[in-house]
Amino acid sequence: MISESTAVRNLALALVHHPVYNKHREVVTTAVTNLDIHDIARAARTFGLTRYYLVTPSTDQQAMIRRIVGHWQDGWGAGYNPDRREALSIIRVVASLNEAQTDYQQGFATPVISVATGARQRTDAISFKSLRKRLQQPEAPHLLTLGTGWGLADELFEQADLVLEPIQGAGDYNHLSVRSAAAIMLDRLLSER
Amino acid sequence: MISESTAVRNLALALVHHPVYNKHREVVTTAVTNLDIHDIARAARTFGLTRYYLVTPSTDQQAMIRRIVGHWQDGWGAGYNPDRREALSIIRVVASLNEAQTDYQQGFATPVISVATGARQRTDAISFKSLRKRLQQPEAPHLLTLGTGWGLADELFEQADLVLEPIQGAGDYNHLSVRSAAAIMLDRLLSER
Repeated sequence: MISESTAVRNLALALVHHPVYNKHREVVTTAVTNLDIHDIARAARTFGLTRYYLVTPSTDQQAMIRRIVGHWQDGWGAGYNPDRREALSIIRVVASLNEAQTDYQQGFATPVISVATGARQRTDAISFKSLRKRLQQPEAPHLLTLGTGWGLADELFEQADLVLEPIQGAGDYNHLSVRSAAAIMLDRLLSER
Repeated sequence: MISESTAVRNLALALVHHPVYNKHREVVTTAVTNLDIHDIARAARTFGLTRYYLVTPSTDQQAMIRRIVGHWQDGWGAGYNPDRREALSIIRVVASLNEAQTDYQQGFATPVISVATGARQRTDAISFKSLRKRLQQPEAPHLLTLGTGWGLADELFEQADLVLEPIQGAGDYNHLSVRSAAAIMLDRLLSER
């Protein structure tokens, strides 16, 4: 059981809205989606995470996230749905992935390892099984990074310490929403087996 | 590999909007959510399913679903995003769970087994591992049933042939969205291991 709680402490999640690709493979800043905030916070909290970073350089979008989270933290929603409040309490709004990494680093003496994720098969990707094992080591913080839109820009894959293998379904069709992908990743990495 | 494709053929998914509970444990008909349609269809299609039933007795809601699906099937969306079209092609709109079961039964000589799911621990629940094995048998159709709102009404648990164990996270907090739960269930039951 010690290894389980260690694993949970060793993982944080970042949802990136820039730099990511759009449908035409141009680097853009995507709009923050309400359900990306809620669904992923609830899944992250269910699997015990203490940090879920929403990454956007847009100050307007940052303000919007804070407004939504505030509604459920302090506003009408806090009394209506305390479970939602608890989920959203792990959210941190940051301007860049570096900022997320710096914040998460605060709890650890060893460097945070960044792990990029995407739907495409890449060489040298680490398996879910290997990453799961890494998380069970003491003091091994990992920041799991997911992209919105059509996925993380290549520069984030180049900067990342590790790249995680894609989730494979049956056959060639592989178009999970980022919300579904996040849920499956957390389950594969942290669920009791 | 034969068992994998058998498993995929043996599973269909139903998302129930009535009878389900609201926050006050009253039996209600929930409104259909756009992202429940899209996210779960994409996850189901990624894992190879050929049927995803949206269950609602409301003819207005049925019409709305058909309008949304139609937009991506035949309208502007079909050309813009063919992947979305493919995902939504597995959707069937039905008035009741019985109707879903009758439709799915058409492809099989052996009776469809209904499997109720929920977040609460129940006695006699079947494990993910056992259900995964059942799906690998020849001619073993199972209809996995998820509830919207605050979950499936008790009568659906009583009518079900099997009840699936809940997804356990870390600790007591367990508030996955139905979209996250569906994704994790599909992954646990059908992903290659």
